Amino acid sequence: MAVYTDVSDEELEAFIGSYAIGALTSFKGIAEGVENSNYLVHTAGGPYILTLYEKRVSPADLPYFLALMEHLAARGITCPLPVHDREGRTLKELAGRPAALITFLEGLWVRRPGIEHCAGLGQALGRFHLAGQDFPMRRANSLSLPGWRALFASIGSEADRIKPGLAGVMEKELHHLEGHWPQDLPQGVIHADLFPDNVFFLGDKVSGLIDFYFACNDMLAYDIAVCLNAWCFETDGSFNVTKARGLLQAYEAVRPLTKAELQWLPTLARGAALRFLLTRTYDLLNTDANALVKTKDPNEYLRKLRFHQRVKSTRDYGLKEH
Amino acid sequence: MAVYTDVSDEELEAFIGSYAIGALTSFKGIAEGVENSNYLVHTAGGPYILTLYEKRVSPADLPYFLALMEHLAARGITCPLPVHDREGRTLKELAGRPAALITFLEGLWVRRPGIEHCAGLGQALGRFHLAGQDFPMRRANSLSLPGWRALFASIGSEADRIKPGLAGVMEKELHHLEGHWPQDLPQGVIHADLFPDNVFFLGDKVSGLIDFYFACNDMLAYDIAVCLNAWCFETDGSFNVTKARGLLQAYEAVRPLTKAELQWLPTLARGAALRFLLTRTYDLLNTDANALVKTKDPNEYLRKLRFHQRVKSTRDYGLKEH
Repeated sequence: MAVYTDVSDEELEAFIGSYAIGALTSFKGIAEGVENSNYLVHTAGGPYILTLYEKRVSPADLPYFLALMEHLAARGITCPLPVHDREGRTLKELAGRPAALITFLEGLWVRRPGIEHCAGLGQALGRFHLAGQDFPMRRANSLSLPGWRALFASIGSEADRIKPGLAGVMEKELHHLEGHWPQDLPQGVIHADLFPDNVFFLGDKVSGLIDFYFACNDMLAYDIAVCLNAWCFETDGSFNVTKARGLLQAYEAVRPLTKAELQWLPTLARGAALRFLLTRTYDLLNTDANALVKTKDPNEYLRKLRFHQRVKSTRDYGLKEH
Repeated sequence: MAVYTDVSDEELEAFIGSYAIGALTSFKGIAEGVENSNYLVHTAGGPYILTLYEKRVSPADLPYFLALMEHLAARGITCPLPVHDREGRTLKELAGRPAALITFLEGLWVRRPGIEHCAGLGQALGRFHLAGQDFPMRRANSLSLPGWRALFASIGSEADRIKPGLAGVMEKELHHLEGHWPQDLPQGVIHADLFPDNVFFLGDKVSGLIDFYFACNDMLAYDIAVCLNAWCFETDGSFNVTKARGLLQAYEAVRPLTKAELQWLPTLARGAALRFLLTRTYDLLNTDANALVKTKDPNEYLRKLRFHQRVKSTRDYGLKEH
């Protein structure tokens, strides 16, 4: 939930007037999206989303994100499309923030994904990875292994304030991953944050992907590892192997995984669990109690990490041996 | 800003399916409205607002509010219209909360109202008061003089935590108003909370009124007093007499004020300032630091109260003597 920035009447009118989309008829803050301020905009031309990029998104990265959305849309991936203003620009400024107007995407995110949703996700993720193969821009993953080490350094023993022993668990897992992290897996553009609230469905069918503001170039299978964590655990903490199998089989129907990717999947899943454990811990320790943001529970990812630590092979994710 | 209640996929689908408005295509929490959870709902039939009534709205009052919106809309006042489900009901339940689906109203609320907006407001308020004259239901104003005394009793000396001496100011003002409060002014349905965020404009024209969840039966001129407080002060605390004149003249073009209403207006404005000083103080003292609500500054209304205490007659609000 986030609307951080107030926009004045005059600025808003001038901003909307710079696009050929007709007069403004409605403007409402949306209580979704943790990183940025999002507004629903109605004009004579239809509904749009206006995003103001807040401080956690680096302005230098915005051209990558916006160009990626245009690239994907041109290849048939349904995602929000940045609107060009009368001068052809997509990245603009409003209320002292970088800003972009993007198309409104119909669809609902699923609060409790079922097996059919996990399969839809797997297929959409495979298609997204293929569509990104010829995207020419590059952005390093700032939240991969070296980034986790830096994040852990800034958290340190403070983690134990959340749960005694948590810092030790993080340190030990980081040390393990630093000695066992794949180097030569297939690379490409990954979403890196494809949680259920970033995947829209109409019925059981994926209607679009949103929120590309963690997208970067990294191992494609790491994206799958993020999704296994975000989509395949039940609220009681148990791992639903049927959902995982549905996700992986649907993905492989679009892009079969290499033997190396399959072998490394449990390690990537440990890494992805550690990534969200670290960022949630950091956020919980550093969020002003007055902030209008609901912090997420780090313990959820501690439990997920422990699950993946016990995984022996992709059989535990529901796949037969290849 | 408020979305308090999570709605499950199944509940939402069943709820929307109970209306003849087509299939659900989008569902987003809206970061507006302090008292309730509001969602923007898109269906094949168009956009709607879904409101879940949270604990500060008494369920017993909801039939009054919903019937009032239907009454007003039938008399040409543009306001959200409760949608009837297939069984004819407007007041329903969702996620354990009272809930209603209402029509989406185009328009924008003005962050910094100008003179033309104050005039538009005055006219709209006058029309609203006339349209409400034959509304048959009754609801007492729980936030009028006796309610303020009760609210003050629950705040007590705690007010001094916000500003030393504040409790004394409140006590003295309450005492004054209890000895000088009008009894026989024209009554009717009042909005009672017609702040700028509850009045939509398209250009300089009022396009609709929203948020009737404080509406009640009380002195009509008290509604004007609320608006003088909410619309006619500048952000530096100064009172803009031109805006007040614009508001009052536009109102009187629709419904002329009686001599008694004009005489009592400064007192009613003191009361309205005290009402928001009390509720903001109460909210600030009682809001959990973790709540996802931005509390409003009580001091703003202390300054407004002091202004009205010095007012001698409606000349100070820009009106000539009648």
